[in-house]
Amino acid sequence: MNVPMQDTRAAVDGELTRPLVDGVKRLFKQRRGRMFLSPGSATAAWEAAVTNTLDPGDKVLTARHGHFSKRWVELATELGLEVEVVDRPWGDAVPVEEMARRLEADRDGRIKAVFVTHNETATGVTSPVAAMREVLDELDHSALLFADAASSIGAIDFRMDAWGVDVAVCGSRNGALTPAGLAMLGVSDQAMAATERARRRRAHFDFAETARLDDHGYVPYTAPTPLLEGLRASLDALFAEGLEQVFARHRRLAEGVRRGVRAWGLDTVARDPRFRSNTVTAVRVPADVDAREVVRIAHGRYRTPLGGGLGPLDGKVFRIRHLGGLDEVTCLSTLAGAEMALKEAGCPIELGAGVGAAQGYFQDAGMAFDLRAVA
Amino acid sequence: MNVPMQDTRAAVDGELTRPLVDGVKRLFKQRRGRMFLSPGSATAAWEAAVTNTLDPGDKVLTARHGHFSKRWVELATELGLEVEVVDRPWGDAVPVEEMARRLEADRDGRIKAVFVTHNETATGVTSPVAAMREVLDELDHSALLFADAASSIGAIDFRMDAWGVDVAVCGSRNGALTPAGLAMLGVSDQAMAATERARRRRAHFDFAETARLDDHGYVPYTAPTPLLEGLRASLDALFAEGLEQVFARHRRLAEGVRRGVRAWGLDTVARDPRFRSNTVTAVRVPADVDAREVVRIAHGRYRTPLGGGLGPLDGKVFRIRHLGGLDEVTCLSTLAGAEMALKEAGCPIELGAGVGAAQGYFQDAGMAFDLRAVA
Amino acid sequence: MNVPMQDTRAAVDGELTRPLVDGVKRLFKQRRGRMFLSPGSATAAWEAAVTNTLDPGDKVLTARHGHFSKRWVELATELGLEVEVVDRPWGDAVPVEEMARRLEADRDGRIKAVFVTHNETATGVTSPVAAMREVLDELDHSALLFADAASSIGAIDFRMDAWGVDVAVCGSRNGALTPAGLAMLGVSDQAMAATERARRRRAHFDFAETARLDDHGYVPYTAPTPLLEGLRASLDALFAEGLEQVFARHRRLAEGVRRGVRAWGLDTVARDPRFRSNTVTAVRVPADVDAREVVRIAHGRYRTPLGGGLGPLDGKVFRIRHLGGLDEVTCLSTLAGAEMALKEAGCPIELGAGVGAAQGYFQDAGMAFDLRAVA
Amino acid sequence: MNVPMQDTRAAVDGELTRPLVDGVKRLFKQRRGRMFLSPGSATAAWEAAVTNTLDPGDKVLTARHGHFSKRWVELATELGLEVEVVDRPWGDAVPVEEMARRLEADRDGRIKAVFVTHNETATGVTSPVAAMREVLDELDHSALLFADAASSIGAIDFRMDAWGVDVAVCGSRNGALTPAGLAMLGVSDQAMAATERARRRRAHFDFAETARLDDHGYVPYTAPTPLLEGLRASLDALFAEGLEQVFARHRRLAEGVRRGVRAWGLDTVARDPRFRSNTVTAVRVPADVDAREVVRIAHGRYRTPLGGGLGPLDGKVFRIRHLGGLDEVTCLSTLAGAEMALKEAGCPIELGAGVGAAQGYFQDAGMAFDLRAVA
Repeated sequence: MNVPMQDTRAAVDGELTRPLVDGVKRLFKQRRGRMFLSPGSATAAWEAAVTNTLDPGDKVLTARHGHFSKRWVELATELGLEVEVVDRPWGDAVPVEEMARRLEADRDGRIKAVFVTHNETATGVTSPVAAMREVLDELDHSALLFADAASSIGAIDFRMDAWGVDVAVCGSRNGALTPAGLAMLGVSDQAMAATERARRRRAHFDFAETARLDDHGYVPYTAPTPLLEGLRASLDALFAEGLEQVFARHRRLAEGVRRGVRAWGLDTVARDPRFRSNTVTAVRVPADVDAREVVRIAHGRYRTPLGGGLGPLDGKVFRIRHLGGLDEVTCLSTLAGAEMALKEAGCPIELGAGVGAAQGYFQDAGMAFDLRAVA
Repeated sequence: MNVPMQDTRAAVDGELTRPLVDGVKRLFKQRRGRMFLSPGSATAAWEAAVTNTLDPGDKVLTARHGHFSKRWVELATELGLEVEVVDRPWGDAVPVEEMARRLEADRDGRIKAVFVTHNETATGVTSPVAAMREVLDELDHSALLFADAASSIGAIDFRMDAWGVDVAVCGSRNGALTPAGLAMLGVSDQAMAATERARRRRAHFDFAETARLDDHGYVPYTAPTPLLEGLRASLDALFAEGLEQVFARHRRLAEGVRRGVRAWGLDTVARDPRFRSNTVTAVRVPADVDAREVVRIAHGRYRTPLGGGLGPLDGKVFRIRHLGGLDEVTCLSTLAGAEMALKEAGCPIELGAGVGAAQGYFQDAGMAFDLRAVA
Repeated sequence: MNVPMQDTRAAVDGELTRPLVDGVKRLFKQRRGRMFLSPGSATAAWEAAVTNTLDPGDKVLTARHGHFSKRWVELATELGLEVEVVDRPWGDAVPVEEMARRLEADRDGRIKAVFVTHNETATGVTSPVAAMREVLDELDHSALLFADAASSIGAIDFRMDAWGVDVAVCGSRNGALTPAGLAMLGVSDQAMAATERARRRRAHFDFAETARLDDHGYVPYTAPTPLLEGLRASLDALFAEGLEQVFARHRRLAEGVRRGVRAWGLDTVARDPRFRSNTVTAVRVPADVDAREVVRIAHGRYRTPLGGGLGPLDGKVFRIRHLGGLDEVTCLSTLAGAEMALKEAGCPIELGAGVGAAQGYFQDAGMAFDLRAVA
Repeated sequence: MNVPMQDTRAAVDGELTRPLVDGVKRLFKQRRGRMFLSPGSATAAWEAAVTNTLDPGDKVLTARHGHFSKRWVELATELGLEVEVVDRPWGDAVPVEEMARRLEADRDGRIKAVFVTHNETATGVTSPVAAMREVLDELDHSALLFADAASSIGAIDFRMDAWGVDVAVCGSRNGALTPAGLAMLGVSDQAMAATERARRRRAHFDFAETARLDDHGYVPYTAPTPLLEGLRASLDALFAEGLEQVFARHRRLAEGVRRGVRAWGLDTVARDPRFRSNTVTAVRVPADVDAREVVRIAHGRYRTPLGGGLGPLDGKVFRIRHLGGLDEVTCLSTLAGAEMALKEAGCPIELGAGVGAAQGYFQDAGMAFDLRAVA
């Protein structure tokens, strides 16, 4: 009847969350530093990351080339940081060379952190986080590297340690995980050291205090049990399939979808083929077609959920998400729904063309599942 | 801690099952007679139906034109009935005219019951139960009409009262319902009267005793709660959509699938278009293709579950089931998986052709969901 | 989308049910013969057992000393058997010596089976099945030994093989298992041999046919998945605790309850201490107290579910069930609720007396859980 | 397949959370101002409340008389507030008169907020929030009134509007709700006005921004669906029983537990009978007994979860929680487990005495459930 109270509870929670933390670190490919699981949103975790490691007036450098990179500019500004922004057209990746120029110009080391959105969900663009780290290392620049790892973790390879990422944030729903409600926050030793220098006052989610409790097997919150169980199930499924197999599957499914888009005669928002995302494809519709209508028909008439265009892409773009526990046939059904919706919205599409192109690719690309396993 | 025992329990169960019985009667379009829900299989319910209403040596008339009609011949034989069988090629419907001839020839009324399989799952053929009743009425023949309503209930119109069905049997999984484990047994007043004449001894599932308990709000078993809850959810979903809408949806989806099959250049097992089933389509493959291979590839490589050919159709036929809470896009995904498997098994199929033909039909056939509902 | 049909399905089900069958055999302590799991009630399984092994006109011997033994007399009579009944007061165990006399008098071996109710739920009496086997062996009598194992399996030791039981029946809810809806039917080699001699016709649940399918990994029904999962969880819990530990726990809890009853100054229906059941205690109330009132107050005012008296015990007896995953404190709470109800129904009880007596026994009887496990 | 993204999602969430927000406001008895539901802990919500309405250097007044009031002193200090603390022995309620004196002395209105812990879980003391509001009103003092409503909401009457509470915080697990993971934060119009004056920078959980989104039907996070469903179920259960009935039930159960404690000859930590909590009772053990041992035996041997003593009460106190969907018999079982543990830990207790005293009270105190409802 009595749930034990504060102190006792925390000890129990530690036992509960410890294997989850280990699993999430494996997912982030992180061996060093800290991983914090926290009930709450990824945005709350971003704020915690910023306020624990940076002070008002500190300068950060970031590109703005999509919906989410734009949000992190706003968040940093609201928190009193000085943000140096490199604007690029939505659809571009992070402009690593221009970022390098800015860092090189920062001779007195005023830039304390660089923000990168690994996978920009609004445009379907995956940026090279590793290249950003190489730049910092070559310049011997001490800025911390922050990565928004939402919608890549668990679907596209992410390497916390190997890429020298100092802060990586992912919400439990934004990656290939379920359900929403937990934030995952990887913090490097360098970022932990920065927290000791930071002067901003925090009570809740102070990194140093949270780490201290963690060392004693405590967590500073009551366990949101259904979320932890959901995360456990998600991790088990990912590791059972194998992380590299999961990444390969997302690559294959994404390429099938792109073949379908090409067979429709349409372009993706992502211009450079090297940076096309394996978890989401943003598709430009012809000028005389309203992409909102495509989304509306697909959802309303064919129960096919497509994402709409965000911000400046509104009406011009619809998005196909291919993230999570999907297989070829599920992606084909989405293409089938989308092509019916495109045709009804006025796009001169031949029914079956996109599906057929993807089918052809899937047949050539080899097996999703090993036939021997079911023989 | 103490679950109340025998007598008390039954009263509680009656409250639990009463609304379910009412829902199932609505599904069977039955207002008169009795509906028995019973934990156990549909086969057990068939045996109970036979032994409650017929005696060893009684004669029954039935066609044998598929896997399930064949099973009922065997069951009746094992139970000591004399079975007059009209054999027809698998793929035919019940031969009503020949059945009429046999009944007409039965001048001294030795035939006590006629068995009809409403929807033959092995061949994808729906037989006209109503026509069978008309024959009996025109001949003024007193034989009871038994219908196997598995795989039609909840997807294809079935009318217990209007068609004068005396015994209708459906398992909770065989129709559009879930999960397996409950049998539904509709019994007309005429069949209940027959139970009083039957001499065979039964202890469990005696219709007269079960009806007597039912009148007092009892059921003669402990409630299998998860099954009852599952059935409740299935019924709620069917009635929320509307039975006639459910039937129309199955009609539309089945026709889309058939258009896809035709675009592949293949035939259905069901020859007469009037009797093609709206819940399952059995597809003949070319002579040089092994249908088992199609099923194996579809399942193993594309996770698309197809049914194999049963009995004489083994290797020659695969089956597409389009039964339950499906929509256009789900059917398109099955066609997409099947056409990849067909091609890999050696069938000269153009990828996308079947899907495209079905898409075209779906676009012309009007909306599955009213766009206004999501505007 | 397509659930594979008949033949394929059965193969899959066999894989599903195989480990469950093994688990249930372990529970019955059965290595030889067959174990059939069947969706449906224990009564249906009893009927199947009788009709598969005995013919109309065959003679069976049984005592009638409680609600369930009375039911099996009725069932056997309805199925056309000749039943030789030994009547004893409700509260007695099976009168082994009188049964022995009857068997000895049966010189020409007309008695084909002996029925024993292992644990009579209505009276809280556990009868010595092993002693019944010894009698049969000493007399070299070939009658089959049928045991109703409901409400003992999984709580009181039962030994199919060691006791030479030929048919043992238990419903998934009647024992310490959940949920209702599955019958478990253990059949010895001798009983299987008898099925070949039996002349009665069966279609559903023919033992020989079911065994033949089982040898090929098939089961003759669609799997009621939620029931199988429930049974799996129940078995896992029992084996994790250890069967002998489970029996010891039920012994300890039952004795605590009996100490409480004695402290109230009341008697149990079971007269001979050797045969008092460890899963249910039937308590006689004083003549001027209405036991129905005790049950009603306990349930309505204190949410404490007590069982009522069945048949001739109605109004004179209430029953405390101590079966399943219970511990000391749960039993104390039932005693607490019962003693408040008793007092309000007019029984001169000192509040706390029954609880205190049980507490004292529990303290002396040693630990339910090993303190070291939680230290 | 595609979960719609950012903007669409928020609109959907708003529909999901709207009825929950209405339900929680009903629970807080709040009609005016704002109610924010936020994934995350109550501590995070406290921090948000402080940083949205107060600036570093602002002065707050609070008593420190238990574990949680102590925590809020620490939190405020960490966030840079100047905290005027009135220390009282653990077990006392908020010293309203002394608080009044301090407020009266604050002639120039430097105190911006008063913190009150409504129900102190560590000591089992409920403080008079209404009296604190009366003091503020009589003095015409403009300080905001903050209330920690954890472990009272949904069990003990709380009146946001009537008591003039400006900020009330409760975690979804700390009250009678489940599961953990959501914070509920009631904010008055006065506190909302204060947010406009506050200068501290926030990105996440900015009250003004959150309120603006809320007016457009948005929520600034992805819905943690299982938590929202759990909260919905908790609210449904509370309203079905009736809030006033829920409060009465907690009053009755708590008094029963206190009678049991008195029968053991022990004292509660809460000294003034007027302020004894109806959701938790902290019990002092004799000087020669180690309360940790009582907790350990109760948990390890009798699976009875008791809370330990916190901070200065460690080893001297154990706590019985009587919060949530409990009834008389559940409380009796906890008393039964506790009294066995007390005796084994060396406390000279008569077994059954505490249980009997509580039983006697429950019989006199009238019915928990209306007998007519089950007649």
